[in-house]
Amino acid sequence: MDIKISILSIGVSLIAFILAAYYYRWVKKLPGGNEKMESVGELIKNGANIFIKTEYLVLAKFVGVAFVLILVFLPHPIWKGEYLENIQMSLAYVAGSALSGLAGIIGISIATIANRKSAVAAQKGLAPAFNAGFRGGSVMGLAVVGTSLLGATLIFMITGSHDTLLGFSFGASSLALFAKAGGGIYTKTADISADLVGKVELGIPEDDPRNPAVIADNVGDNVGDVAGMGADLFDSNVAAIAASVVIGIALNQIETVFCFVALGLLASILGIMSVRVGKKGSPGKALNRGTYATTVIFALLTFAASLLFDINLRIWGSAVIGLVVGVIIGFTSEFFTSDEKKIVHNVAKASTSGPALTIISGFSYGLMSVFPSLIGIGVAALASYKICEPLGGNYPLFGISMAAIGMLSIVGIVVANDAYGPIVDNSRGLAEMAGMGEDVIKISDELDAAGNTAKAITKGFAIGAAGLTVISLLAAFQGIVKNITGKIVPFDIMNPLVFFGLLVGLAIPAVFSAMLMLGVDRNAQRMVGEIHRQFDEIPGLKEGKEGIVPEYDKCINIATKGAIKELIPAGLIAIIITLVVGFVGGINAIAGYLTGNIMSGLLLALLMSNAGGMWDNAKKLIESGEFGGKGSEAHKAGVVGDTVGDPFKDTAGPSLNTLITVVSLVASLAAILFINYSIF
Amino acid sequence: MDIKISILSIGVSLIAFILAAYYYRWVKKLPGGNEKMESVGELIKNGANIFIKTEYLVLAKFVGVAFVLILVFLPHPIWKGEYLENIQMSLAYVAGSALSGLAGIIGISIATIANRKSAVAAQKGLAPAFNAGFRGGSVMGLAVVGTSLLGATLIFMITGSHDTLLGFSFGASSLALFAKAGGGIYTKTADISADLVGKVELGIPEDDPRNPAVIADNVGDNVGDVAGMGADLFDSNVAAIAASVVIGIALNQIETVFCFVALGLLASILGIMSVRVGKKGSPGKALNRGTYATTVIFALLTFAASLLFDINLRIWGSAVIGLVVGVIIGFTSEFFTSDEKKIVHNVAKASTSGPALTIISGFSYGLMSVFPSLIGIGVAALASYKICEPLGGNYPLFGISMAAIGMLSIVGIVVANDAYGPIVDNSRGLAEMAGMGEDVIKISDELDAAGNTAKAITKGFAIGAAGLTVISLLAAFQGIVKNITGKIVPFDIMNPLVFFGLLVGLAIPAVFSAMLMLGVDRNAQRMVGEIHRQFDEIPGLKEGKEGIVPEYDKCINIATKGAIKELIPAGLIAIIITLVVGFVGGINAIAGYLTGNIMSGLLLALLMSNAGGMWDNAKKLIESGEFGGKGSEAHKAGVVGDTVGDPFKDTAGPSLNTLITVVSLVASLAAILFINYSIF
Repeated sequence: MDIKISILSIGVSLIAFILAAYYYRWVKKLPGGNEKMESVGELIKNGANIFIKTEYLVLAKFVGVAFVLILVFLPHPIWKGEYLENIQMSLAYVAGSALSGLAGIIGISIATIANRKSAVAAQKGLAPAFNAGFRGGSVMGLAVVGTSLLGATLIFMITGSHDTLLGFSFGASSLALFAKAGGGIYTKTADISADLVGKVELGIPEDDPRNPAVIADNVGDNVGDVAGMGADLFDSNVAAIAASVVIGIALNQIETVFCFVALGLLASILGIMSVRVGKKGSPGKALNRGTYATTVIFALLTFAASLLFDINLRIWGSAVIGLVVGVIIGFTSEFFTSDEKKIVHNVAKASTSGPALTIISGFSYGLMSVFPSLIGIGVAALASYKICEPLGGNYPLFGISMAAIGMLSIVGIVVANDAYGPIVDNSRGLAEMAGMGEDVIKISDELDAAGNTAKAITKGFAIGAAGLTVISLLAAFQGIVKNITGKIVPFDIMNPLVFFGLLVGLAIPAVFSAMLMLGVDRNAQRMVGEIHRQFDEIPGLKEGKEGIVPEYDKCINIATKGAIKELIPAGLIAIIITLVVGFVGGINAIAGYLTGNIMSGLLLALLMSNAGGMWDNAKKLIESGEFGGKGSEAHKAGVVGDTVGDPFKDTAGPSLNTLITVVSLVASLAAILFINYSIF
Repeated sequence: MDIKISILSIGVSLIAFILAAYYYRWVKKLPGGNEKMESVGELIKNGANIFIKTEYLVLAKFVGVAFVLILVFLPHPIWKGEYLENIQMSLAYVAGSALSGLAGIIGISIATIANRKSAVAAQKGLAPAFNAGFRGGSVMGLAVVGTSLLGATLIFMITGSHDTLLGFSFGASSLALFAKAGGGIYTKTADISADLVGKVELGIPEDDPRNPAVIADNVGDNVGDVAGMGADLFDSNVAAIAASVVIGIALNQIETVFCFVALGLLASILGIMSVRVGKKGSPGKALNRGTYATTVIFALLTFAASLLFDINLRIWGSAVIGLVVGVIIGFTSEFFTSDEKKIVHNVAKASTSGPALTIISGFSYGLMSVFPSLIGIGVAALASYKICEPLGGNYPLFGISMAAIGMLSIVGIVVANDAYGPIVDNSRGLAEMAGMGEDVIKISDELDAAGNTAKAITKGFAIGAAGLTVISLLAAFQGIVKNITGKIVPFDIMNPLVFFGLLVGLAIPAVFSAMLMLGVDRNAQRMVGEIHRQFDEIPGLKEGKEGIVPEYDKCINIATKGAIKELIPAGLIAIIITLVVGFVGGINAIAGYLTGNIMSGLLLALLMSNAGGMWDNAKKLIESGEFGGKGSEAHKAGVVGDTVGDPFKDTAGPSLNTLITVVSLVASLAAILFINYSIF
């Protein structure tokens, strides 16, 4: 790889780390709160640590097994005599999973500090509280993108092999799959149980310290939303790089890929630094301004770089198309999920006729919401292909992969915005539990609402980027098969094996989501039982008698154990069925299978994320006083919608893009085995 | 066409009509009930007639417009000078829609008689009531299949053109699409509103005559379930015949197609005649025995015919594979939706923790339930392809279309079983409203439960058959394009136009379902308002004062008007977007679009039908006394699940197979226009 680009990539990564370290120390130095606040903060921190330790111990075993399997089988069975590549790939796999895990741990570590600091800062006003939350989130954003870029650059510099890079990507995404499944089950188990008993049955407020599940709920925000989401975007970023490199290597365009990714990180750094909220400013607008700024900076920087490094402007155009479409998809999600827009208003209105109509209307609008996003992804793919078509050869497909890179270019600020959400959500909980007064809670609420909207936008982004990335991975898969067999795999559904694979692939995201949600369901039923037990058996707890504290740790244990128990089967099933389809039906079946997976993965991910966001905000709209306000029948119906939406939007929905990435990578890595050893 | 086969087809159709006429008179001659029963029965009959008249008037206008468009544009623009084919096709289109409408009207006509007769017969015991219901349903089954076979045979005998047959099929399926959309919206508007106010708010029983929506609800069973379903299976049967003929014509296998369809109808006739329930017999088992008998008779008859008419046994094998897989898919649906199995038990158990968990668990199991059915369709396609592969040429694809024919062979008894359901459901309502006592209601309940299970099985069947039929239609589309251009359309998703079409196609079934369900939602909100008004303004209604009758007709009008208003946009959108995609992206985009449509259509249809069935039966399980029984919190949660499931399983879910058939037919018919006039 060109030395200038290597220096650029490594240099920008290092700048990201320095800024992250600076923010980390800045947040840590902010004044601490009163004793109660600190003690509750420590409870959350310890709860998060327990989960992290337990989960990563299980994941380490999984990584160990996968390491041995890759060493023995990939890219060639080791008894064929060529084991250098196997060693490289298995080590790259371990590096990918370790770095992905590290990014998650850094995120939790800062999030469990920033939450308290933000709550304390809220006593001084909105702006200081916002800064504490956003800078906390930025540590995560910078760490995720910096690590993924640095890792990918070093792996490629050392080995020069795109296969090894795929192995690195597979490490990152398989870990992300388990981390998201586990974290997603944990967080929603706690959230749903706390709400069901607290809000619905007893009518006590959110984050009331009497509720035995309240600490587990706050821990969940950190292990699910922060760590899981960090691992997810780490994985998307690496997968987009790997796919572009696989396609770009024959075109001599490796430098272009790394250059654009590095400049995207640089743009994110500048964008993050530009985010400010005035004393009376709106936090939502501040976050959006940061996103816009990053977008413009990226477009300008890459334009300059294209002139400087003699990159064809058509390639630059593809990246910009991806970026623009990403922003449009994000704002479409906002249209469907913002409580200032008509859709959420309609869902809230339907709630006045009971929970059934809340569900029917939210689900229906969720189905509708897939339309603009799917069109957006289609337009991005078509336009980036067409714009690069005059360059000939594989350039059109490279154009699609560069559109994915463009869409993901601003991932640094996306993660920062996204991690900001759970941090301020947590600080609201801390303020409530430490009894910090109405003013602080009001500020936290405002910060939280901004976080929710930012989250809806970034989710649309993440799914769109995953859509484009997996098309690139399909192209990569086709390229790999062509290298081995000299033939182009037909993605032709009139071939019955392809059609068979298509139907099986279609079912996988459905089954996977179902397993995760049923995991939440089972686990929540257990935890509801435990909360009931505590309210029944601990005298004075319900009444809030001075000095009576619930047994928070029992709920934490239920959430942790349940999540660990459910994450492995859900994650494994995707990998195992992919291997079964490949070894039975061969590459024709796999081609259909990948297509089916992508199709139903995108459809379900968009449906679930958007429907979940709608229900959440419809409930908030009712709570703000519309349609009867808090305590009305409409509110009860809204709470049911919100509870259904929780595992939709925070467990199943966002795990699906990781799922389709993992499945695509398994197919690419094992393609050679399928070709040589399949039954059909 | 061979004269022997023509005689067979026409002869068997005529036998079906004779038997239908005999059953019709038999049912009509059964003793009538008391005055109250007759007056309520008349209310339902008149309500159904109002809807039928209003709806078919609107549909007639639509058919008129389509007639002119087809005459002018299809298969060739008329100014090109060849208008004989255009005249044929446009007339065939009108014939298809007229016969489809006729089948629906016959069904409603008998259903609104058989419901009263069955209720009256229930006074004498289970067996007479069952016979009245089942023979009523059989009239519908025999009429639907007889008309479709006779129509298709005559059209093909007269014109000898498979294009014209496609036009006939398009007429049948476009009418079915509107009929199902309209009927589905009507029936669930009334059902949901009656339940929301009656059961949930006021706690009065189902079918209580005080409820202003109760007549509309009973009318709904007839116009939605009977007429809509009849139109649907009419359409599936014709589409399977048309697709097989298009593929089979070059193979000289037209006779095989008509022979198998005719023998399927003959098997259904014998199967229907064999259905008996003893004095203490179980109605569910009687229905299933009839299905099995038909299956075996069909396999034997076609085996004999294959030897007699020298049809290759591989083709026979394909049909039998389709049949067997159809039965397996049907029983998989039963596993997921029967209240005697574990899944429904789990959903009912989750209901003890509130409605949110009812929804989450039912939705999750619904997602899981797609897996075995999709595998089943995949296996049927793969096996029927492979078994005919040694015959060479287009025989493998013909094998797939014959698997669809095999799966649909027993459609006669399937429709009979399916129409039996709403008839006995209605007779339960009549018994309740006419105050016929607990014994009669208990018998009606037992008959109703058997109807629900039969419905779940036949729904699995219908979706599976649609899946295989549309693959045949894809092959037909490919064949048509090849005839025109000499090239094979690549269903290759690495082609960006195909991929673009795929993503758009993926969204259509989602948007279509959403429009139907939102139609129900909006309409139900209106009707709930009207019911509230009546209870508020009519003195003595709530208390059930003697002589006070609600204004049933106001609710009937709301349901009718709302359904008409919503059915046209939902139906049109599918046709218009297909044309837009075709004229913009050309046949490449259409190839992807069809694939995407089929994929998401099958996924959503299976999900919604099965989840809806689960919720329905989970509620019934709770009502039978489990998990707290009637009036418990679990029951309230179960009612919410059931209400959500209503539009899933009776409005959106079953309309989707019609949707994908319509879209496939539009693409095939307009292929030549897309080739000549598209932008890309």
